[in-house]
Amino acid sequence: MAERFVYGFGGGSTDGDAAMRDLLGGKGANLAEMAKLGLPVPPGFTITTAACNAYYANGREWPEGLEEEVARAVAELEAKTGKRFGDASNPLLVSVRSGARASMPGMMDTVLNLGLNDETAAGLAAKAGDERFAYDSYRRFIQMYSHVVLELDHGAFEAILEGYKEENELRSDTDIDASGWKEIIKAYKKEVERASGHPFPANPEEQLWGGVAAVFRSWMNPRANVYRKLHNIPEAWGTAINVQAMVFGNMGETSATGVAFTRDPSTGANRFYGEFLINAQGEDVVAGIRTPRPITRAAREEMGDKHLSMEEAMPEVFAQLTEMYRRLEAHYCDMQDIEFTVEQGMLYMLQTRNGKRTAKASLKIAVDMVDEGLITPEQAVLRVDPASLDQLLHPTISPKFKRDVIVQGLPASPGAAIGRVVFDPDEAADLAQRGEAVILVRTETSPEDIHGMHAARAIVTSRGGMTSHAAVVARGMGRPCVCGATDLRIDEAQGQFVASGRVVRRGDLITVDGSGQKGWGQVLAGAAEMVQHELSGDFARVMEWADSIRKLQVRTNAETPDDLKVALEFGAEGIGLCRTEHMFFNASRIAAVREMILAESVADRVNALSKILPFQREDFVEIFRLLDGRPGTIRLLDPPLHEFLPHSPEECAAVAASLKVDPKALQARVKELMEVNPMLGFRGCRLAIAYPEIYAMQARAIFEAAAEVAKETGVIPKPEIMIPFVMSRKELAAVRSIVEEAARDALAAAGVELPYLIGTMIELPRAALRAGEIAEEAHFFSFGTNDLTQTTLGVSRDDAAKFLGLYVDRGLLERDPFVSIDAAGVGELVQIAAERGRLARSELKLGICGEHGGDPDSIAFCMRLGLDYVSCSPFRVPIARLAAAHAALSEKRPSLA
Amino acid sequence: MAERFVYGFGGGSTDGDAAMRDLLGGKGANLAEMAKLGLPVPPGFTITTAACNAYYANGREWPEGLEEEVARAVAELEAKTGKRFGDASNPLLVSVRSGARASMPGMMDTVLNLGLNDETAAGLAAKAGDERFAYDSYRRFIQMYSHVVLELDHGAFEAILEGYKEENELRSDTDIDASGWKEIIKAYKKEVERASGHPFPANPEEQLWGGVAAVFRSWMNPRANVYRKLHNIPEAWGTAINVQAMVFGNMGETSATGVAFTRDPSTGANRFYGEFLINAQGEDVVAGIRTPRPITRAAREEMGDKHLSMEEAMPEVFAQLTEMYRRLEAHYCDMQDIEFTVEQGMLYMLQTRNGKRTAKASLKIAVDMVDEGLITPEQAVLRVDPASLDQLLHPTISPKFKRDVIVQGLPASPGAAIGRVVFDPDEAADLAQRGEAVILVRTETSPEDIHGMHAARAIVTSRGGMTSHAAVVARGMGRPCVCGATDLRIDEAQGQFVASGRVVRRGDLITVDGSGQKGWGQVLAGAAEMVQHELSGDFARVMEWADSIRKLQVRTNAETPDDLKVALEFGAEGIGLCRTEHMFFNASRIAAVREMILAESVADRVNALSKILPFQREDFVEIFRLLDGRPGTIRLLDPPLHEFLPHSPEECAAVAASLKVDPKALQARVKELMEVNPMLGFRGCRLAIAYPEIYAMQARAIFEAAAEVAKETGVIPKPEIMIPFVMSRKELAAVRSIVEEAARDALAAAGVELPYLIGTMIELPRAALRAGEIAEEAHFFSFGTNDLTQTTLGVSRDDAAKFLGLYVDRGLLERDPFVSIDAAGVGELVQIAAERGRLARSELKLGICGEHGGDPDSIAFCMRLGLDYVSCSPFRVPIARLAAAHAALSEKRPSLA
Repeated sequence: MAERFVYGFGGGSTDGDAAMRDLLGGKGANLAEMAKLGLPVPPGFTITTAACNAYYANGREWPEGLEEEVARAVAELEAKTGKRFGDASNPLLVSVRSGARASMPGMMDTVLNLGLNDETAAGLAAKAGDERFAYDSYRRFIQMYSHVVLELDHGAFEAILEGYKEENELRSDTDIDASGWKEIIKAYKKEVERASGHPFPANPEEQLWGGVAAVFRSWMNPRANVYRKLHNIPEAWGTAINVQAMVFGNMGETSATGVAFTRDPSTGANRFYGEFLINAQGEDVVAGIRTPRPITRAAREEMGDKHLSMEEAMPEVFAQLTEMYRRLEAHYCDMQDIEFTVEQGMLYMLQTRNGKRTAKASLKIAVDMVDEGLITPEQAVLRVDPASLDQLLHPTISPKFKRDVIVQGLPASPGAAIGRVVFDPDEAADLAQRGEAVILVRTETSPEDIHGMHAARAIVTSRGGMTSHAAVVARGMGRPCVCGATDLRIDEAQGQFVASGRVVRRGDLITVDGSGQKGWGQVLAGAAEMVQHELSGDFARVMEWADSIRKLQVRTNAETPDDLKVALEFGAEGIGLCRTEHMFFNASRIAAVREMILAESVADRVNALSKILPFQREDFVEIFRLLDGRPGTIRLLDPPLHEFLPHSPEECAAVAASLKVDPKALQARVKELMEVNPMLGFRGCRLAIAYPEIYAMQARAIFEAAAEVAKETGVIPKPEIMIPFVMSRKELAAVRSIVEEAARDALAAAGVELPYLIGTMIELPRAALRAGEIAEEAHFFSFGTNDLTQTTLGVSRDDAAKFLGLYVDRGLLERDPFVSIDAAGVGELVQIAAERGRLARSELKLGICGEHGGDPDSIAFCMRLGLDYVSCSPFRVPIARLAAAHAALSEKRPSLA
Repeated sequence: MAERFVYGFGGGSTDGDAAMRDLLGGKGANLAEMAKLGLPVPPGFTITTAACNAYYANGREWPEGLEEEVARAVAELEAKTGKRFGDASNPLLVSVRSGARASMPGMMDTVLNLGLNDETAAGLAAKAGDERFAYDSYRRFIQMYSHVVLELDHGAFEAILEGYKEENELRSDTDIDASGWKEIIKAYKKEVERASGHPFPANPEEQLWGGVAAVFRSWMNPRANVYRKLHNIPEAWGTAINVQAMVFGNMGETSATGVAFTRDPSTGANRFYGEFLINAQGEDVVAGIRTPRPITRAAREEMGDKHLSMEEAMPEVFAQLTEMYRRLEAHYCDMQDIEFTVEQGMLYMLQTRNGKRTAKASLKIAVDMVDEGLITPEQAVLRVDPASLDQLLHPTISPKFKRDVIVQGLPASPGAAIGRVVFDPDEAADLAQRGEAVILVRTETSPEDIHGMHAARAIVTSRGGMTSHAAVVARGMGRPCVCGATDLRIDEAQGQFVASGRVVRRGDLITVDGSGQKGWGQVLAGAAEMVQHELSGDFARVMEWADSIRKLQVRTNAETPDDLKVALEFGAEGIGLCRTEHMFFNASRIAAVREMILAESVADRVNALSKILPFQREDFVEIFRLLDGRPGTIRLLDPPLHEFLPHSPEECAAVAASLKVDPKALQARVKELMEVNPMLGFRGCRLAIAYPEIYAMQARAIFEAAAEVAKETGVIPKPEIMIPFVMSRKELAAVRSIVEEAARDALAAAGVELPYLIGTMIELPRAALRAGEIAEEAHFFSFGTNDLTQTTLGVSRDDAAKFLGLYVDRGLLERDPFVSIDAAGVGELVQIAAERGRLARSELKLGICGEHGGDPDSIAFCMRLGLDYVSCSPFRVPIARLAAAHAALSEKRPSLA
């Protein structure tokens, strides 16, 4: 038997249900479901997604059987409605709408009022008792059909309409009466014939097939293609088409149309929430031509609206609607977003779907529904999108606050902050130490600015993209950041910046919004009104459920006590990546670091390192205290040494003077250390192979600190020493022995015994491939997926802005591989390393500490590979906890099915 | 039964033979073999390499059974020689020498004259009738033993000897008589007791065990460890020890010692060649204290030497020796390097081994031996080390020429060349065009200098290592190059350079020797006398045999007609890599290239590209003509665009003026295009994704040229278009369609049909992993192992000098991975890609075009993976042909065994 392409719904008999979403699309499945529930759905039928695919497979011709099935469905629809296509006295009019498996709002085409021609328009006028309504509908249909189906240019029709109004000195469309519309319709039809070479089709069947073809075609239109790529919707899914009898909310004062949510989508409060318009079509609510009114009386009173609410104006219909939304919510067990139309006192349900909501609302609704017994805690966890928590965790600008925007840029790191403008990182650090809230404004940032970035409440740069140094570091630190504000020109000499003619001076108060407003990060004048994050209540309950579900541990990437405190408050279970180099940039240490780099003998180097040692030890004492027995993975020095040296001749001169060295010698060393490709240069454990003293000092500092904290608190710290940029077993073995010797010495001197681990980053393809051997020397692997992505794809993150966006736009890459792990490439290397590593050492601990550690898709990937933990920046810890729970639940699902 | 540790040889009964090299070491196996052949070998025994390993496994204690076996072997030796350890009248004296599987000349220790003490020295004196000889031998033994076995400092013994001479007013050691040596011996023994706390051991058994332990120990001494690492000799091989009865070439005028080659090791001529000394020990020949004499009369007469040759002085012994060398060569079927001693008229053979020889000699000997019926052509092919051909292919400085060295540097690219000094690449190009031979001298080179480097006969830089830009490019072009000549200071303003106080001016004639003299590349004053390469005769015959054996095709990396001509002369079977960017740097085109880069619209860019098109087409016409129907792989534009732009403000200003653009706009574009890690930047096919016009122009130029040559010559060119830096199937598909469209248009316009291939470089780990998908879009893969090594190991070749040497020295890497492929890392990716690619497309053509294409070990690796071809720089083509034959034979061997 041939495949069935058409499923009817409504009017007493319905073929599909909500479970058939893949075949009927979201809208079609829900219409069927509502019809089955006995809700008043205008009858119609759905042409399946399979028909769409068959249409394309068949070279854009109707697949066999479709025409017959549609004809039968039309006949059935005529029977259900008692109306007929082309019947001059009681014409059947339908809408033809797309409806894919996944929502793709506005991406595909729709035709309304299909079935109108000169005869049926007259019939509709008679039946509605409203000639103007009928001919307005007719001209709308011609316009829409000409554009969508006949693919004619908009402009000509607008010109006709505008010309008519001008000639007749009318101001707006509402001034045009029935005879006016009739005249316009004549002109429209003439234009169609001129432009297309054919008269406008009067036959409703012909109109219907034209509409169906147009909707199928629109599945492949450019904006749908782009949308699918952006949202990872496979082309092979196809779209369904819903052909549904028209109902009219604009048939007079007993007609209305509206949209509503079963709970408040903004706060999550359990109260009916929606808007409606009397004597209006659905588009009018959406298009904003007329201002819709609240549905409930309570809402109307709250808003001080004078017009009657629906509850008051149409109490009976309102009671029906109330009954229906209760049934829908009880049925779907989720907050519903519904569309309805009242045609001459009759309520029709046009759509229901799970409603979009804010992060705050999603938490509240989920928790409330558990309390109401509607859903389980596991379902509640799945109801909250991990990525949406980003909104909640950072302070944000109050939605009520009126923004005075100075300049816009990229929303590079979320959250908002208020502070005084500074241009110099040292000044930022100084002022912050004195308790001032400052915002660092720079052309671009470099690793030397880290201390200033950390001291600042937020960062603004005039150059660089979403993956620039400033953006990456700011996200890591949880500082709001606006990057690439190209209209902003900094004049450091004058101590000011200029943007669109406005001058902002050093010390002026500004607010930075890194979360983005319509896709733009903003810099605002003055101090905005803020909304703080809330970690208790609904949030805490959902996170508690998530923690009980997830199997992956969640650690944090943190190196300062402040960051670590935030991360622990957010539920981090330890440190997954403590970058020791950030500690080297501190102003009070950089001199000794530079002295170490410039040392010409081992003795000189050891001497310089001995000056850094006490600082490093103090850093680790503080960190171990805060960790309070939780594990802490500390990565030894990683960046190339030239990052610690000045670059310009002026900076070199200044540094040379302060270090009392020959400026020429300093410049020569700087030049000697400069690299063509620093990412692939003299860094990571390569430094320790050349200068073992550096890692020896760091290891000593760590173990002296651990011993001190163990003695002081009685809680044994759990240091995990991580060796970066390893490419072979021998290399790790050589570096490991440096660390072990220092650990032995430091612990023996302190008289403390302390278990510790030594492991490595897997961040080079070679390390992933040789993981079996490397695991012989490593207690743990931490996947450094940032660098692994750079090397596997051959993409420098600092330079990727030139082409990565283009790649994602063109669908050559599904996602930015620095945001979500490239499972097919980088992911295979991670998998190879995990398998080979565990084969060689079954108890090998596996984690991830690249930025992917905070990305939900990447977390699911880590879960599937059986990793032990993910580590992410402090502000992403709750996201990771929730995403890990999602991953655990989605892994559980197949076994339940 | 316990393992046997000791094997006797000589004196009528011999346990081992030449096949037991692994167990007995090279020297021991050959001594046994000679003894079995009935040659007069002083008897002795070999302690096996297994004993050495057992000694180390046993914590440096004698393994069980060794002591008994050695005792039995000593007793047998006493029986064979009729002498006894410690016998005052007829003492047994032995040498104790190391002998590993692979030759490690001078790396391990030796003890001679072992068995001497006060009594046996007297006995030796009586027996030899020469007291001075006996006591000189005794003191030498004490000195050697104290150093090697007792590990005492040299200095004290030298001080005693010098002190004695001073006191007695003697000028040289030869002035010391027997009583003098006796006195010195007393002082030596006193010093031994003082320094070691023990008297010098008089017991020969104790001496023997001391010697054996010392030789075993020396397997692990630092210089042996380094040597093993450098020559890839596993530590686990261990060394054998040969204990052999001493014979003395210094027992008067009927005694002699000598070394000889069965054929001339320098020319390969089939004539006996060697040197000897009457009344001397082996060391004297080697040490160069006395000048050895020719062995044959013919050689003596040639040299005009007045002293008698061995042939004349000892005709009987000479006849014996002649007979022996003939037998040895016939037996080993290879040229032998032999050592012999004549003790009072008795000839003894001390060693035979395959003789080292020059490349020229190795070719001649191999060919002659085939003609003589001694070996097969296959054996002849294996006799020639592919790497050694490097000497032959480049012109070299005549060994007779007296060098006037101006400065030394790294021998970065082999060969020698003469030319006039220029400092500016443009000037180099200009002068070369006028037929001048020039040598480009630069501080360092950059891609902008390519045209000048190509125009120059040789290149000298004062900075940069073996993997610097100058070195890599020069090797690729086959230009001799000396890099990192740090003593050379260029003063371009004055038009001169200074080195060690000597001034060399622009236009002065110099000679560059990039092959290396004692490890140093040299710059010589004036024009040296040169020796040209010879591609006919023996070379041609060996290469012909190699070609009939090898299965891998050999192509070349070439982009200029000159390079291609050389490569074809050297036997290249096509082009494996034609880098089109080199064509862009040409002075007459760079303006249009820059205009293209600075274009602000597609139209401007297309316009600029249309100016480049005729040049590109001409390039390809010339190349296709030369290829004469051979395949030519052409890589489309690869480097980041900023490589084509000026960098310094001055250069920007000059270029802006010539292009008539705003210097600020140019600088801004330069800055915008600059990259932090250009290796991982906006390059390769990423350029074509952003600017499809570029590849379209290049493809058009290629196919227009191909069509033109097809029409002109009637021979159909075989273009193979190669897309660089691909990381995914989609990317390749997108670029492929650009090329196909251009090909279609160009061929249709010319009315020519032409088959062509489109393939990709596999040079990113992701491409290797996704090779299955990528093969769906590719007719061929070419492994770009340079970039694949950079990304897989995370090592930038430009920056690697800072640590790669250290890694190789410390054994963390076996070889420089840019010279010989890293089989365990990069190699696995190549294997994965080859397997996945062939699985998806069985006829997929596979090749390699990184620098590894010319490295024999890497070629063997490619052969094992079943690649179709290797491609290398022109001067390495013969090396690759021969190495491919070696690889084919070594693959054949197991199946024959």
